[in-house]
Amino acid sequence: MTNPQVLLLVAHGSRGQKANDEVRLLTTKLSQKFEPGSVQVQCAFLELAHPSIASSIDQAATRGVRRITVLPYFLVSGRHVTVDIPEIVVQKSSEHPTVDIRLTEYLGAADCVVDMLSDMAKRAIA
Amino acid sequence: MTNPQVLLLVAHGSRGQKANDEVRLLTTKLSQKFEPGSVQVQCAFLELAHPSIASSIDQAATRGVRRITVLPYFLVSGRHVTVDIPEIVVQKSSEHPTVDIRLTEYLGAADCVVDMLSDMAKRAIA
Repeated sequence: MTNPQVLLLVAHGSRGQKANDEVRLLTTKLSQKFEPGSVQVQCAFLELAHPSIASSIDQAATRGVRRITVLPYFLVSGRHVTVDIPEIVVQKSSEHPTVDIRLTEYLGAADCVVDMLSDMAKRAIA
Repeated sequence: MTNPQVLLLVAHGSRGQKANDEVRLLTTKLSQKFEPGSVQVQCAFLELAHPSIASSIDQAATRGVRRITVLPYFLVSGRHVTVDIPEIVVQKSSEHPTVDIRLTEYLGAADCVVDMLSDMAKRAIA
């Protein structure tokens, strides 16, 4: 297999390593949802933890990856989602013009978030 | 109907009002998942936005609400989830001993988060 695509789960990053490790564990679980060898699932952090988004994209490009999908692991569209992450994607796209770097919606934009919250709340209240 | 219970969706809060308004809209959608009159669904913010968690609990207690379920709208268990929110719940429980204030798991702890991410990623990659 050569040049598989990369799915980059981008989290904020925390001073607490436990929180960062949660993102890493989630990344491992997410990678198990894809056919082996089809997608390399990795995580990166906007700040406070490593690897950074920029370095993750640089390293993937250097390995010959030709498509990177950036999925923001954020709940609301604050400045990080609307400005900071898009700016990095635009910058890295210009530095790696042969790499197709796509930015998806952030997690909180998914319609099913409300269903998930409803399920959690109903279990807690019952 | 008297003394309905309250479900308090607790978000971090953002300097950007658009992000806070997203939480408010989500709260409205979440309230529609419950039988009318059974649960009052409200949102509160840890910082940077109003109402605060403490004031929301105080007001509910003053209205005669006897059970408040606090659901943290957070993805990872950083300090906010592990220390800040529990401290407020403990403090308010001692101030309102006749109110049953329960703290649920945070959203990111739900098993189905990985499925949601997987669905979003597969749609983006396809």
